Amino acid sequence: MKDRIREILSWYSSENPGVLTNLARMLNHGRLGGTGKMVILPVDQGFEHGPARSFAPNPAGYDPRYHFQLAIEAGCNAYAAPLGFLEAGAAEFAGDIPLILKCNNHDVLNDERDPISAVTSGVEDALRLGCVAIGFTIYPGSSERNQMYEQLRELTLEAKSAGLATVVWSYPRGSSLSKEGETAIDVVTYAAQIAAQLGADIIKVKLPSAKVELAEAQKVYQKYEIPTSTLAERVKHVVQSAFDGRRIVIFSGGATAADDQFFNEARAIRDGGGFGSIIGRNSFQRSHDDAIKFLGQVMGIYEGSVK
Amino acid sequence: MKDRIREILSWYSSENPGVLTNLARMLNHGRLGGTGKMVILPVDQGFEHGPARSFAPNPAGYDPRYHFQLAIEAGCNAYAAPLGFLEAGAAEFAGDIPLILKCNNHDVLNDERDPISAVTSGVEDALRLGCVAIGFTIYPGSSERNQMYEQLRELTLEAKSAGLATVVWSYPRGSSLSKEGETAIDVVTYAAQIAAQLGADIIKVKLPSAKVELAEAQKVYQKYEIPTSTLAERVKHVVQSAFDGRRIVIFSGGATAADDQFFNEARAIRDGGGFGSIIGRNSFQRSHDDAIKFLGQVMGIYEGSVK
Amino acid sequence: MKDRIREILSWYSSENPGVLTNLARMLNHGRLGGTGKMVILPVDQGFEHGPARSFAPNPAGYDPRYHFQLAIEAGCNAYAAPLGFLEAGAAEFAGDIPLILKCNNHDVLNDERDPISAVTSGVEDALRLGCVAIGFTIYPGSSERNQMYEQLRELTLEAKSAGLATVVWSYPRGSSLSKEGETAIDVVTYAAQIAAQLGADIIKVKLPSAKVELAEAQKVYQKYEIPTSTLAERVKHVVQSAFDGRRIVIFSGGATAADDQFFNEARAIRDGGGFGSIIGRNSFQRSHDDAIKFLGQVMGIYEGSVK
Amino acid sequence: MKDRIREILSWYSSENPGVLTNLARMLNHGRLGGTGKMVILPVDQGFEHGPARSFAPNPAGYDPRYHFQLAIEAGCNAYAAPLGFLEAGAAEFAGDIPLILKCNNHDVLNDERDPISAVTSGVEDALRLGCVAIGFTIYPGSSERNQMYEQLRELTLEAKSAGLATVVWSYPRGSSLSKEGETAIDVVTYAAQIAAQLGADIIKVKLPSAKVELAEAQKVYQKYEIPTSTLAERVKHVVQSAFDGRRIVIFSGGATAADDQFFNEARAIRDGGGFGSIIGRNSFQRSHDDAIKFLGQVMGIYEGSVK
Amino acid sequence: MKDRIREILSWYSSENPGVLTNLARMLNHGRLGGTGKMVILPVDQGFEHGPARSFAPNPAGYDPRYHFQLAIEAGCNAYAAPLGFLEAGAAEFAGDIPLILKCNNHDVLNDERDPISAVTSGVEDALRLGCVAIGFTIYPGSSERNQMYEQLRELTLEAKSAGLATVVWSYPRGSSLSKEGETAIDVVTYAAQIAAQLGADIIKVKLPSAKVELAEAQKVYQKYEIPTSTLAERVKHVVQSAFDGRRIVIFSGGATAADDQFFNEARAIRDGGGFGSIIGRNSFQRSHDDAIKFLGQVMGIYEGSVK
Repeated sequence: MKDRIREILSWYSSENPGVLTNLARMLNHGRLGGTGKMVILPVDQGFEHGPARSFAPNPAGYDPRYHFQLAIEAGCNAYAAPLGFLEAGAAEFAGDIPLILKCNNHDVLNDERDPISAVTSGVEDALRLGCVAIGFTIYPGSSERNQMYEQLRELTLEAKSAGLATVVWSYPRGSSLSKEGETAIDVVTYAAQIAAQLGADIIKVKLPSAKVELAEAQKVYQKYEIPTSTLAERVKHVVQSAFDGRRIVIFSGGATAADDQFFNEARAIRDGGGFGSIIGRNSFQRSHDDAIKFLGQVMGIYEGSVK
Repeated sequence: MKDRIREILSWYSSENPGVLTNLARMLNHGRLGGTGKMVILPVDQGFEHGPARSFAPNPAGYDPRYHFQLAIEAGCNAYAAPLGFLEAGAAEFAGDIPLILKCNNHDVLNDERDPISAVTSGVEDALRLGCVAIGFTIYPGSSERNQMYEQLRELTLEAKSAGLATVVWSYPRGSSLSKEGETAIDVVTYAAQIAAQLGADIIKVKLPSAKVELAEAQKVYQKYEIPTSTLAERVKHVVQSAFDGRRIVIFSGGATAADDQFFNEARAIRDGGGFGSIIGRNSFQRSHDDAIKFLGQVMGIYEGSVK
Repeated sequence: MKDRIREILSWYSSENPGVLTNLARMLNHGRLGGTGKMVILPVDQGFEHGPARSFAPNPAGYDPRYHFQLAIEAGCNAYAAPLGFLEAGAAEFAGDIPLILKCNNHDVLNDERDPISAVTSGVEDALRLGCVAIGFTIYPGSSERNQMYEQLRELTLEAKSAGLATVVWSYPRGSSLSKEGETAIDVVTYAAQIAAQLGADIIKVKLPSAKVELAEAQKVYQKYEIPTSTLAERVKHVVQSAFDGRRIVIFSGGATAADDQFFNEARAIRDGGGFGSIIGRNSFQRSHDDAIKFLGQVMGIYEGSVK
Repeated sequence: MKDRIREILSWYSSENPGVLTNLARMLNHGRLGGTGKMVILPVDQGFEHGPARSFAPNPAGYDPRYHFQLAIEAGCNAYAAPLGFLEAGAAEFAGDIPLILKCNNHDVLNDERDPISAVTSGVEDALRLGCVAIGFTIYPGSSERNQMYEQLRELTLEAKSAGLATVVWSYPRGSSLSKEGETAIDVVTYAAQIAAQLGADIIKVKLPSAKVELAEAQKVYQKYEIPTSTLAERVKHVVQSAFDGRRIVIFSGGATAADDQFFNEARAIRDGGGFGSIIGRNSFQRSHDDAIKFLGQVMGIYEGSVK
Repeated sequence: MKDRIREILSWYSSENPGVLTNLARMLNHGRLGGTGKMVILPVDQGFEHGPARSFAPNPAGYDPRYHFQLAIEAGCNAYAAPLGFLEAGAAEFAGDIPLILKCNNHDVLNDERDPISAVTSGVEDALRLGCVAIGFTIYPGSSERNQMYEQLRELTLEAKSAGLATVVWSYPRGSSLSKEGETAIDVVTYAAQIAAQLGADIIKVKLPSAKVELAEAQKVYQKYEIPTSTLAERVKHVVQSAFDGRRIVIFSGGATAADDQFFNEARAIRDGGGFGSIIGRNSFQRSHDDAIKFLGQVMGIYEGSVK
């Protein structure tokens, strides 16, 4: 085992060897294996946004096998998807890439101010499909948050007993937050803290802005002059907020952006001490060859071979 | 096993042999057995619309045995009905036709804007009645959708453990959709995707119109010029949206229509790559002999003996 | 076993021998034993309406033993009551009359537009009290109906596993129905159908009027000229709606009426193919001797010894 | 066993020997042991009204041991209290007095129109603390009543399986009742009936007034001229409403009243055939010696040594 | 075992040896071990208020190991934190300090008038992390209080079976209380009583003011002239309200205050018979050395070495 991986696993000393093994499987897989950095391919947009919005830009993506192959060829650390998408390839690609079963999902045929996802699969499914981890989305800020935390708590307890790792998407949303507040620095760090306190092994948050949403937090940011002007500083503060860097925090890129901007964001994540990216639409919505090249560039930034 | 059936089963490589066996039982049964096409007789209208509206047009249908006999004589692949209707014939016709237990039902004595069906039976019932599959209706678009997805998830998990297949009726309805939107092409494809992601083995949707309901989707349909002008094109897009054709998708005909129109719809389903029809009122609300002839004509279209 | 009983049991071919045995116990008991007709004494009014309204007219009825004795002496097929009333006599009268445990109850200290009863006992209680069946009330038309159907479904599954029969009181009520609509012919037949589809062995409904409540149903009643002008025709239509006569349907008389009117109703039930009556207030609210005579007269009508 | 106790136990012939034994333990304990009359000390006011309102009048009562000692010295049949109060003395006074674990409680820091208590302990607790019975409060008339009945039903089922007796406090309250209606004769008798039907072994109600609350009931009280002018007549009618005297019904005195009035009420309970009293604030809010004397006087009235 | 510890354990005579052992572990640990006094370090503010508001004043606190070390070095009796914080150190510091797993948590990204915390961990987690106790917050006065009491009841039952102690944070809040009422003397004593009745072994409340919130309580405080003018008198009354001193009651200091004021409060707790303090922000939001000194001063007050 590489020293860096041994170091990272040492932060999870309360987890049983099963969970440690599955964390190691992700950290040791693919091009970034052994570096302590991760790039994960998530494909749940078919459920979250609908099939045409997700796959019409690159119709090969309607086929669930496409994403397994893309993640494998690109050298991602893991592939994350809902039950159906994993069922449609888990046997064919058994053992080729670590799988994360996304256990709750939300669709936009009926959208609401205070969202909550449906629990669509669980630990039994993850085990029968050979996954290394469960994935779960929480929406801190939603009036339904307690129910989500409690659903996550039950899944996490069961996952840990079964030796599976837990990956939490922590996305603030809800009627008590402004739209911009969803990515405010105090809100994103709070979301990372909540996920860590709930027992998450890997935490996924959005890249934060410099805005501070909550009045009580604003006083503290000013008094202690917490640096948040550059993206790298903000990433550093997010990582600090997840147990001072002792939990793996990765960042999502959101909708497609210009490649240069995306690469700059990856550099900021790297420089701020983030552990990597989870890249969905930016990878599977472009052509296969373009996606391989794009993901290669991102991984190059994380491993240091690309500036 | 015919090659086409072997091919179809290969899409379900994550299912255990029990589920594969029960899928094969349906695919190999009746006149269309071995073709990969299916015509299923569903009779849940007694619960969904009331007895007189359902059976007065052909009073023989008040007797639950009538529908078993009709499905058997017509050479359907399977017969689907609620608990009571199956209990009233499952022993008498044991082994004569694959049975699908419809596990949730909705009545119109109290109708609502955002519907949810009652769970009226389950896997234990399906097993004691010798069924090959459970059936379940979800209403994407309803504010109650999460509860339905979660009910389905629990039933599906249990069904798969018991080696039963899962058939999902995915019918968009609810306060966030316009009446026409319930069959809009973007909404029907979304409904098919959701059912597939939830782990359905067989998906039943309504035939879609060319309308696009959601603004975000409309941009995509225009930008990528997704062909939706003919019914066959729309069927093709629905099938694509269900894992690029790697899930069985069948279509419902809705209320009784002129036979010619119905046959044209069957041709469009066939030409678009659909897997068949689920035909309720159009078959059991006409006289026995007429129904046999009508269903024979539809099956002829699917097997290619009728143009 | 009498041929008629053998015939009736043949309709329940999916039930296990335990359920068939308990159905037979009711069908073979009392004066109408072996005829296929039933008169059942139900006494849940103490809970449903309060003690004084129920028992002041004949104070002997405050004592739970009175009703056991009345049902036995009158030769009823079964006695149905809530937990407390059965507990107060089940040991003393063990084996003297088939017992039905009424598993849910509703009181009028807090009445509501869309009612739901409380589940007050269950299969474990029925077994320890030596009952042959569970009884359960559903209110189709209530906004709470799904919860009731699901409660019934769980009880029924458990009852069937334990070899107990299921008796369903199907009483349409709720904000979506007019007061007269609760006994409209289309609504009562719908209620009978729902109970049958939910797996009920014996269905209890109210005698219907000729009114048709729902607009969609009205079109069908007119188009197919369903005969509903006489009470016997309406009874026939209700029986038809319960699986074409292949489920036992009995009728309740409601509040006390003039005896002659009641006897005429019994004749209509008999002539329409109904299976009998469930008679509560009309029997236990008159004096013991009068009740014995009255019930004897009703049974005479059913067995044909009284015109 | 005294004949009167044998007679009382004969009313509970459906209960198992475990429940009968625990009923006998209460009926045979203390000064009234063997008479068929009961005086029970309940102390749940610390939870229901707060500590100062409960114990400031006699600060010795802050100590949970005080109430065990009071009940033992006074010769009560049983002592009833919530989990914490019983935990604080059950070992020290093991076997000295029958204990009733009050399994639900309500506080007034947040009061509401339609109350429901929290379930605060259960059968497992009762068993580990050596109790003879569980106690539970229902509020008929509250819009939450169904939930309470169902909670009670589950506890009762479990208690009976474990051989524990069930004591039900049946206190009508809620938005559908007037304040005076809570103790109206028709409402109190209805509450007694409901508790009996729910399977209670011992029923506790408030002393009723002559008022009739419900219009439908009023017609019956007038038509049948039910005597309710004296308190003894009303007690008799309550006892009649609890299975014609075949269930133990005891009465609560409510807040502290003048002693003479209280003794008169006890005489009315005795003369009307009631089974005794449950006396909380009137006993533990006076000094120890005064309480012993007061309770002795009440017991004297019940055993006949005091007129 | 020191006599004082033996005496305290004697109050918990209904608990099994497992719970007694874990209570003893806390009472015997650290500088105050054996004195019967306790100082506990709780760190759940990362979840309750967010990371920056909690840890920016002393950034070392972002690291979960910091708090273990602080509690150990300062000689606290126990350290309490949510799941994530304990997972991040329980193995590394195994056996070095008694741990309390805080099993529910509340965040302020969505705050509400009538709060309820999410259940975020449970007894299984406490056992696998080597904890001596579970911790749980209730908000008496909230309209959600019954749900919290019932969650606590289930956890407590399970904890006691597993030999774990139960620590309850009882913090009145909710729409039925004024802001000042949350710390009113009648409300705080009521909150202590409720926690004790729910079976808590250790109760944590806020220091009360002399205000009386509830009108019914006010009458009693005046009539019986309950002394509440000094803080020590009020502490004494709180301790009295928790079973007359037979339950361990400790007090929280709330937000940072001037040290002198804090020490005076500790003296009042000591003089009023309180069992100690639970000190979060006042300890971990100052520098390490300052915190050690500060906590040493507080412990000195409790052990009597500091006046």
